[in-house]
Amino acid sequence: MSSTGIPESIARLIGELSKLPGIGEKNATRLAFHIFRYPRENADNLVKAIIDTRTKVILCEECFTFASQSPCSICTGADRDRSSICVVEEPLDMIAVERSGEFKGRYHVLHGLISPIEGIGPEDLKVKELLGRLKEGSVREVLLATNPSVEGEATALYLARLIKPLGIEVTRIAHGIPMGGDIEYIDEITLSKAIRDRRHM
Amino acid sequence: MSSTGIPESIARLIGELSKLPGIGEKNATRLAFHIFRYPRENADNLVKAIIDTRTKVILCEECFTFASQSPCSICTGADRDRSSICVVEEPLDMIAVERSGEFKGRYHVLHGLISPIEGIGPEDLKVKELLGRLKEGSVREVLLATNPSVEGEATALYLARLIKPLGIEVTRIAHGIPMGGDIEYIDEITLSKAIRDRRHM
Repeated sequence: MSSTGIPESIARLIGELSKLPGIGEKNATRLAFHIFRYPRENADNLVKAIIDTRTKVILCEECFTFASQSPCSICTGADRDRSSICVVEEPLDMIAVERSGEFKGRYHVLHGLISPIEGIGPEDLKVKELLGRLKEGSVREVLLATNPSVEGEATALYLARLIKPLGIEVTRIAHGIPMGGDIEYIDEITLSKAIRDRRHM
Repeated sequence: MSSTGIPESIARLIGELSKLPGIGEKNATRLAFHIFRYPRENADNLVKAIIDTRTKVILCEECFTFASQSPCSICTGADRDRSSICVVEEPLDMIAVERSGEFKGRYHVLHGLISPIEGIGPEDLKVKELLGRLKEGSVREVLLATNPSVEGEATALYLARLIKPLGIEVTRIAHGIPMGGDIEYIDEITLSKAIRDRRHM
């Protein structure tokens, strides 16, 4: 029992939960007590899911997303269009694109973005591996789906300059006003981008 | 691999994390991927802390807080004033009072509040156990530190009526404007309570 009256095991659990992104100490305390009071089955399932994630999930050696086997089911999928690759920063971005149902090709996960400030260069990302895949010859289009941030734009520009000389079409996801968004409240950079990229109807 | 491209182990971890209070599916997804990418030591520590919390933490048979041994170190503490007991709803409230450093007595955790709407009566709380402790004779003051909610006030009133006939002083934590609060923006119920409970200076 620590001096604050929290048993040492719970104090350690609070500490471990606080290390997770977006979880402060107060939140971690609530979660820890919740886990203590959990039905046995829930607690067992949580522990098992963590262990399984750590032991059974690997990186696909083709596209570098998280997967149960390598190459992953998307890379080997008979229904996937092998002529296009969507480049994303993180596996979570890939999942978002998948959920949209709009893209039928394969993916390539960079695992980061070029950021001189943070000292992250192309050699720290899966750029070499992407070029290797493109040189195989079956890819006709690379869709750059990095975030519309400074780093995301810089990375997209860098990749476009590398890939275009290979004779492959390079496209970028559209930026603009989100569906349901309000022109009155949208930031001016997005609005100016949306006007510049206006389309015929 | 599920149809959304998430490996089954991670999908299960996302499901388990989503069951925790205040964690939605998006948040759970971020956490799950973070746990996957964790250094091995962090992941091991998290799992161990959950298991330890489930196996090593018990309820103190005196005050019913979470503890490593029973009776807990506060109940047995030589420096604790055995003449006063602070009654709280949850162990987290006890920890908050402990952190204030203002209370030197012992605690009693009710594990809930009286709530006719939710069908929770005194028999569902550790009320009988509290009366048992009071009848031992060493307690002179009971400080009721339940939340200033409808249920918290009702529970405090109920306990006060039970305890006063035993010849024990019953006190209630003060309600009022929080330190650093702004009179202009405080809700009217708190302000009227603060005026009614005004003190001589």
